Amino acid sequence: MPYVAPVKDMLFAMNELAGLSEVVAYPTYAEAGADVDLAPAILEEAAKFNQDVVAPLNWPGDQNPSSFKEGVVTTAPGFKEAFEQFGSAGWQGVVHPAEFGGQGLPKLIATACFEMVHSASLSFALCPMLTDGAIEALLTAASPELLERFVPNMISGEWTGSMCLTEPQAGSDLSMVRARAVPEGNGAYKIFGTKIYITYGEHDMAKNIVHLVLARTPDAPEGVKGISLFVVPKFLVNADGSLGDRNDVHCVSIEHKLGIKASPTAVLQFGDHGGAIGYLVGEENRGLEYMFVMMNAARFAVGMQGIAVAERAYQKAVQYAKDRVQSRDLAGSPGPVAIIHQPDVKRMLMTMRAYTEASRALAYYAAAAYDAQHADPDEAVKKANQAIYEFLVPIVKGFSTEMSIEVASLGVQVHGGMGFIEETGAAQHYRDARILTIYEGTTAIQANDLVGRKTVRDGGATAKVLSQKIAETEKELAASSSADAQAVLKQLTLARAAFEEAVAYILANAKSDVKAVYAGSFAYLRLAGLVLGGWQMARGLLAAERLRETDPSFYSAKIATARFFAENLMPQTQALATSIVESGYSTNALEVEQF
Amino acid sequence: MPYVAPVKDMLFAMNELAGLSEVVAYPTYAEAGADVDLAPAILEEAAKFNQDVVAPLNWPGDQNPSSFKEGVVTTAPGFKEAFEQFGSAGWQGVVHPAEFGGQGLPKLIATACFEMVHSASLSFALCPMLTDGAIEALLTAASPELLERFVPNMISGEWTGSMCLTEPQAGSDLSMVRARAVPEGNGAYKIFGTKIYITYGEHDMAKNIVHLVLARTPDAPEGVKGISLFVVPKFLVNADGSLGDRNDVHCVSIEHKLGIKASPTAVLQFGDHGGAIGYLVGEENRGLEYMFVMMNAARFAVGMQGIAVAERAYQKAVQYAKDRVQSRDLAGSPGPVAIIHQPDVKRMLMTMRAYTEASRALAYYAAAAYDAQHADPDEAVKKANQAIYEFLVPIVKGFSTEMSIEVASLGVQVHGGMGFIEETGAAQHYRDARILTIYEGTTAIQANDLVGRKTVRDGGATAKVLSQKIAETEKELAASSSADAQAVLKQLTLARAAFEEAVAYILANAKSDVKAVYAGSFAYLRLAGLVLGGWQMARGLLAAERLRETDPSFYSAKIATARFFAENLMPQTQALATSIVESGYSTNALEVEQF
Repeated sequence: MPYVAPVKDMLFAMNELAGLSEVVAYPTYAEAGADVDLAPAILEEAAKFNQDVVAPLNWPGDQNPSSFKEGVVTTAPGFKEAFEQFGSAGWQGVVHPAEFGGQGLPKLIATACFEMVHSASLSFALCPMLTDGAIEALLTAASPELLERFVPNMISGEWTGSMCLTEPQAGSDLSMVRARAVPEGNGAYKIFGTKIYITYGEHDMAKNIVHLVLARTPDAPEGVKGISLFVVPKFLVNADGSLGDRNDVHCVSIEHKLGIKASPTAVLQFGDHGGAIGYLVGEENRGLEYMFVMMNAARFAVGMQGIAVAERAYQKAVQYAKDRVQSRDLAGSPGPVAIIHQPDVKRMLMTMRAYTEASRALAYYAAAAYDAQHADPDEAVKKANQAIYEFLVPIVKGFSTEMSIEVASLGVQVHGGMGFIEETGAAQHYRDARILTIYEGTTAIQANDLVGRKTVRDGGATAKVLSQKIAETEKELAASSSADAQAVLKQLTLARAAFEEAVAYILANAKSDVKAVYAGSFAYLRLAGLVLGGWQMARGLLAAERLRETDPSFYSAKIATARFFAENLMPQTQALATSIVESGYSTNALEVEQF
Repeated sequence: MPYVAPVKDMLFAMNELAGLSEVVAYPTYAEAGADVDLAPAILEEAAKFNQDVVAPLNWPGDQNPSSFKEGVVTTAPGFKEAFEQFGSAGWQGVVHPAEFGGQGLPKLIATACFEMVHSASLSFALCPMLTDGAIEALLTAASPELLERFVPNMISGEWTGSMCLTEPQAGSDLSMVRARAVPEGNGAYKIFGTKIYITYGEHDMAKNIVHLVLARTPDAPEGVKGISLFVVPKFLVNADGSLGDRNDVHCVSIEHKLGIKASPTAVLQFGDHGGAIGYLVGEENRGLEYMFVMMNAARFAVGMQGIAVAERAYQKAVQYAKDRVQSRDLAGSPGPVAIIHQPDVKRMLMTMRAYTEASRALAYYAAAAYDAQHADPDEAVKKANQAIYEFLVPIVKGFSTEMSIEVASLGVQVHGGMGFIEETGAAQHYRDARILTIYEGTTAIQANDLVGRKTVRDGGATAKVLSQKIAETEKELAASSSADAQAVLKQLTLARAAFEEAVAYILANAKSDVKAVYAGSFAYLRLAGLVLGGWQMARGLLAAERLRETDPSFYSAKIATARFFAENLMPQTQALATSIVESGYSTNALEVEQF
């Protein structure tokens, strides 16, 4: 099943909801050549590349996963060649600084490009995604010398990056990291330890791998305040930039996984043969802080993976539903019809479509906030956008990935018995999507972040700002006379009230009844995703009503999808608010031995 | 991970919610030796067998699926031996008539036994489950001679059964069945055609396979009124009962599936070498009618599979959550604690547990209604119970299987990164569960059945009966002074109102706006499952409050779980009612080409 990048939908979200014209007008992006006409040109290029080169590798990659033998990982057929093309075409550097060979374009544009790579193949896209994360970590804190030595070759796609955080005893809780870094006196360190779940921690797609590794120096304090960040290349780099000795980091196995099988997930052993040479990034003991910058980028990216796999699953389900003839139309048809005419199939497809569009719109909106945070000349505007971006990151990550599992599962369901047969391909999305709510911080981690750092810490200020923005959209809806706008207004108003009820409950009880509040953290994240996603859909409806005459089929579909989201999905916000406010006690009522 | 049959939970549901003492008192069951003490004895035996013999085969069976070579299917290691034990111990015959070698016990008891087989291994249990279906079909309509020839050997487990309905062009829509049956004049027919997705359609676990096949005789009318049912054995049976010639039915391939890999899913070719000998079951052209009897049994059984896999996934997740130490307690603990102390982990485990218990309680309640339908001496009571059982079957099937996917997915999530590694085993449940909403009628088929045949056809009479029963439970809750009962009462009252609103909408619009009504059929099924499951949980709470002093830990867990269900899951009923009533238009708004 081919993938067709939804360029028109992406541009709609970028132009009408994320404010592309304002973003590209920032001097830093304008200087890089960005304008409103650049976006469609780049998106069309990205679409071509991902449709033609990457997407065809996805199913074969699942059937011929990366393999491990005597320390060497061989990736799936075609991956190496496709990644060479990816790098040489400049796709790794879209968002990165021109001084290191990047294009310096807004995250908003890069996000749309990356959505396509993820849709084409989650497994493939993980390699540039992790490289992106490693570049981001280096840009955050590395010395000019380290930057010069590593970043240009990563941006060009000649080398890739990995993020080495997790250890067997340190998963969600990085305070338990035990990897050691022993100073050598010459600015270098020797690194010792085991890292697990390292995506593309070993592979054959690039000449070198630049591992970003969390470890402790000998005198570091306990806990998260004693973690430092090191860059540990697979091959050492000589002064002239050429590759030197093999470093003492070795892959000892890769995992046998449920999905994303083409991407190797490595167990890496550092320092078993004397110590792996590493270089400190930034200052000692500030590793987690740097990691958080990078993790926000990676979490956002994983959220995009959710949207991307949902889009792919949706396209596949639509195609099947149009092709598969079975049963008569409920209203009575002379003979059997394509199943897309059955209301429950429409319900499934609309659910898939509405979740995907809403999540995409919210993610792009967040990307634009990130761009404003970095490029707006006004400090107050920067700060305001930073708060919004940081509030949205756990939602983009948590909500989009949770919905992607549901959407991929619906994709299987639309196919009926065929969906359960591996060769059909729908099951691959169901398997692949299942990792997204786990890596880069489980949904619980995102939900706790949303409650603690993003809602309670500022006394609900950012939540209130978003609430006010929604209320403004409600006013605009009220001004439209259409039945669609009125239907959306009704549900959006209720959803906003549910959101505000939840925020008020959390603020009032976060100190006095912490376990009850966090028992509702997942529900709060989901509620926030529904109301904010539904808000973007409502804004989309308003834009579509304005633009309707220019393309009636496209815009009337936007309007109907917004209304479906409001009437079919957004009402869940009421149930979630009830559960947040009422079920704190019963969630925690059982003693451990009663389970 | 071992499986421990939840015998105590099962007996609670049987005794306190399904009325075991009334069921066993029916003369037909009492004569078969049933009494309230028999149930625990049988359940303990079943537990022992399934824990020790079947459960250990589940993961190896996934890793060594059934294989196909030159027409021969070799099942997973140990399956053949386990099935021999299953048969010789009499487990196939628990519910079947004593005259053919069965035990003639109530479905309520058999249901608990079968739940255990399914929990132990969905793949294994499919073989006796399909055999059960075939026995049921024969008992419904076969001649005494056919019964005598086939049924005793099936009940003893020497032969197995299969149900051959689906063809490539006839999945959900059996009116399109094309297999042909040509009369031979001697009471036999020659059968020609292709059947797909035939579970245990070919295997090496029994000496013979008794296929129940839907086909059309030469002069049969078009559509569902021209379908007849035939019994087509793999080996013909001589007059003396010994096995004769190999019949002309051959397996040409088995499927490469997402899950339940140990169970072979066959493509069967009938009549490629002259015609497969078949015998008419009952009368010509009444095949679908007989099939429906059997399908109700099979649909109920698949619902039990959902409950069973949910139970297994829950047990596994609990064990991991108790073992895995990571992060401090939110309320502050000196060091890291087992993750079961984290509120969001409790939320996941409670969700898994509450869904499983509610679905089990509802299924057992339905099984007792089936027993009353068949064994009560009073015709009016029979009819009333038949209506309730038939109303509940699509809910047991649809709701329990949909929730099982969610529960299995939560099971993966509780394991974090480990959940995505196949060797952990949590992913197997996630893959296995995915078929349950598809086979024996997709959830859409169940939902349409619930709306059309079960709600609209009797003008909502059965729905109203159930509503009244819920209202009576509300009165009992009101009479309890406990905060738990009051909390459940509040949500149950709201849920019943949502159910009644949905029923009223469906009845009012089923004729005038059929597409809008059926757009809400899935939501209606889910709403019904939540309110009826929640009702059983509420009844369980009342029983637990009465019994609390006898076993405080067990009964207080029942109370807390009932309250969690009410506060955390049942509020979704409001959202579902909104979606049923409001989203009929938007679900159907898009034209095919707009997708």
